[in-house]
Amino acid sequence: MNDVLDFINVSRDRYVDELKQYLAIPSISALPQHAGDVRRAAEWTAEALRSAGMQQVRLIDTPGHPVVYGEWLGAPGKPTILYYGHYDVQPVDPLDLWTTPPFEATVRDGELYARGAADDKGQVFMHIKAIEAYIKKTGGLPVNIKCFIEGEEEVGSVHLDDFIRSHKKDLAADVVVISDSPMFDRGIPSICYGLRGLVYFQLDLRGTRSDLHSGAFGGAVANPALVLAQVLAQMKDRGGRVRIPGFYDDVRPLGDAERAEWKKLPFNETKYRKELGAPRLFGEKGYSTLERVWARPTFEVNGLLSGFTGEGAKTVLPAVSMAKVSMRLVPDQDPNRIEELFEAYVRKVCPATVQLKLTRMHGGKPWMTEFDNKYVRAAGRAVQQGFGQAPVFSREGGSIPVVSTFREELGLPSVLFGIGLPDENAHAPNEKLDLGNFHNGIIASAYLYQEIANLD
Amino acid sequence: MNDVLDFINVSRDRYVDELKQYLAIPSISALPQHAGDVRRAAEWTAEALRSAGMQQVRLIDTPGHPVVYGEWLGAPGKPTILYYGHYDVQPVDPLDLWTTPPFEATVRDGELYARGAADDKGQVFMHIKAIEAYIKKTGGLPVNIKCFIEGEEEVGSVHLDDFIRSHKKDLAADVVVISDSPMFDRGIPSICYGLRGLVYFQLDLRGTRSDLHSGAFGGAVANPALVLAQVLAQMKDRGGRVRIPGFYDDVRPLGDAERAEWKKLPFNETKYRKELGAPRLFGEKGYSTLERVWARPTFEVNGLLSGFTGEGAKTVLPAVSMAKVSMRLVPDQDPNRIEELFEAYVRKVCPATVQLKLTRMHGGKPWMTEFDNKYVRAAGRAVQQGFGQAPVFSREGGSIPVVSTFREELGLPSVLFGIGLPDENAHAPNEKLDLGNFHNGIIASAYLYQEIANLD
Repeated sequence: MNDVLDFINVSRDRYVDELKQYLAIPSISALPQHAGDVRRAAEWTAEALRSAGMQQVRLIDTPGHPVVYGEWLGAPGKPTILYYGHYDVQPVDPLDLWTTPPFEATVRDGELYARGAADDKGQVFMHIKAIEAYIKKTGGLPVNIKCFIEGEEEVGSVHLDDFIRSHKKDLAADVVVISDSPMFDRGIPSICYGLRGLVYFQLDLRGTRSDLHSGAFGGAVANPALVLAQVLAQMKDRGGRVRIPGFYDDVRPLGDAERAEWKKLPFNETKYRKELGAPRLFGEKGYSTLERVWARPTFEVNGLLSGFTGEGAKTVLPAVSMAKVSMRLVPDQDPNRIEELFEAYVRKVCPATVQLKLTRMHGGKPWMTEFDNKYVRAAGRAVQQGFGQAPVFSREGGSIPVVSTFREELGLPSVLFGIGLPDENAHAPNEKLDLGNFHNGIIASAYLYQEIANLD
Repeated sequence: MNDVLDFINVSRDRYVDELKQYLAIPSISALPQHAGDVRRAAEWTAEALRSAGMQQVRLIDTPGHPVVYGEWLGAPGKPTILYYGHYDVQPVDPLDLWTTPPFEATVRDGELYARGAADDKGQVFMHIKAIEAYIKKTGGLPVNIKCFIEGEEEVGSVHLDDFIRSHKKDLAADVVVISDSPMFDRGIPSICYGLRGLVYFQLDLRGTRSDLHSGAFGGAVANPALVLAQVLAQMKDRGGRVRIPGFYDDVRPLGDAERAEWKKLPFNETKYRKELGAPRLFGEKGYSTLERVWARPTFEVNGLLSGFTGEGAKTVLPAVSMAKVSMRLVPDQDPNRIEELFEAYVRKVCPATVQLKLTRMHGGKPWMTEFDNKYVRAAGRAVQQGFGQAPVFSREGGSIPVVSTFREELGLPSVLFGIGLPDENAHAPNEKLDLGNFHNGIIASAYLYQEIANLD
């Protein structure tokens, strides 16, 4: 192991240089014009796996963006890790809020700024480099590893469930390892044991055939921008509670023991609020901020568009309005049922003065595991070795829908060991990766393979 | 007069060709990048006045876009008409809804399609051509005319009140003539005796310093897009009535006589609804559509923008949201007082979880005159001669704020004789001008000068 660690330590600068090349590929899976870039990123990932010493490396086509697969199965009798990550990234708008261009990775104050730096290319690359160090210095790995890196995570992994179902044998393993979530806080590594689920919709309202002069017609027909506001306003009450009937029916109540554990975590609401730059925190009554984000569902508006949005004033009565909305779900809410409840409620509250179109975008199930399972404990020890301190056990407000699929289709537990930070700006301008965490993460990943190897 | 009419009739095609050149200049006053085009349109207007035979033609600078001025004062003892129009146009987005490019005027089925065709370049040009025909064929005009054509009407005539106050002597006249409104309906020419006023605001809400991941933070802070929806939803009740306290205090009730007159007008709500392509008409309870548009105030959302609005799904919790809103006012509402009431109400209903910024964009007073004044009757006779039928007397839902200024600062009555159509798509894609109305309008304009000359 010392040789492996030495190799990782001397390669520190090279890793950053290579990661910069990876981050230069604008693999935005949501935007059709970037389809070629997404494929380029897949090929880059495959090449990195090959040069790390993985075998059978290949792109596997899906109806959408390809999956990158590679394996090293030279440790018979040892457990097999299915490593899952994604090489696609979020869109970058608003572009003018980026200090440096999103696809020209730049180091400032020990952090690497680029779209995908934390979510998830940086964390994918961390595992590739841990594998590379192990194979280069010891001729192999202590466990069997299958790498399974997809390109549609940021568009809801739309083809992944089918892929997993039709590749059950290829993906057979003992445990899934995922690094696609932030640490609890800077200097406080964590293992995540719960995730929220997601449903996402687009609402399109049409009032009239074309835009109208707001003077000549204002007051005679419904204004679809105002109707949209009225519909959305009915989604949450003043206490931050979602008003969709039945929405909370299947929410697993937060237990006293878990609440007590979370109260012990070093979380400062004032510091959190100031870092976000929010006038005040706001959420569902009766819950702390951590509880709201980790264990309670929410309704959010992700986008609004109608009428004239340029500089100045245009007296238009818009013909159409659009909103993108999403709900984060917690155990045991079911995305399909929530989609139905939402659709029924929107159709009920939306007046007949406009035409309503509802489009389901994507969704994923919430997930939770018990944190006394042996793989989670092995990951805890690996993190302690990589970061020099024991991790906290936390849940996450985000969604990694595939985690539920791994459990349901392959019967596999997942270990969520993420090295991002809460202020990493994933999905926002100036996404960044702490290079110290990146380095410690490579070491922790190497230890993780060893710890899992030692379980048997 | 017969020579004048002959000249107008033989020049019909030439008028359309010249108007196409005028419409090719993208004089969008709301967009700073078009400032040069706005000035080019001013110069084009001045040149057209000069070649029509007007004198003292010049551009007069203002703190914004220039005023075009020209005069013909060779009829001593006769009344002086102050002709007012504007050479600036509305923005053109959404561009993809235009059948032909907005600044390449195109004739289809007897209508000329272009931005500004009806509002207001086509109607400005109608008067210029009537003046030209008169001067060319008779050596002069039967009345004195001062042409006063501005370039900021579409941005609320922000510098016009000051300009009028500081040029009272230059603008002294007996009556103002304006052609910047539609006819009552196709084949039904009209004289307008009432206009709504306007106030226009931009609302900017900020929730956090930057966009956030809606999974990691959703439920912990207010969503500014949702808060915006909640604020806007409180502006109108389900009966279409504006909820701003005090909003209706100064509204002049609609008299029984006026309501009875309007009931006689050939207005078909079903046809109107179908032409607009609206699922149903909707407005303030207790009023007909004409009453809602002509005699009742309204609140409209003109634009909405927040978060991710591209194709696909992005799980962002937006940092900011924006709305453009406006209110159309009727006699005797005062724009300043309504602005104050609106601001106070928004500040009251907007929660402290977001930062609120309110920007007053522009405004204008509502206006109404008595339609038995002698100039209005003269215009009625002119329209009858140009169009072969007597006009109806109507009000208009739109705003021409300068009309109030002319009354207050110069003591002048206004005659609103417009030859657009209700479906002309002013302020919308595919703006158009009926070329038959344009031609009849030139004839009616020539008769108008004669009718006003004959008043003394």
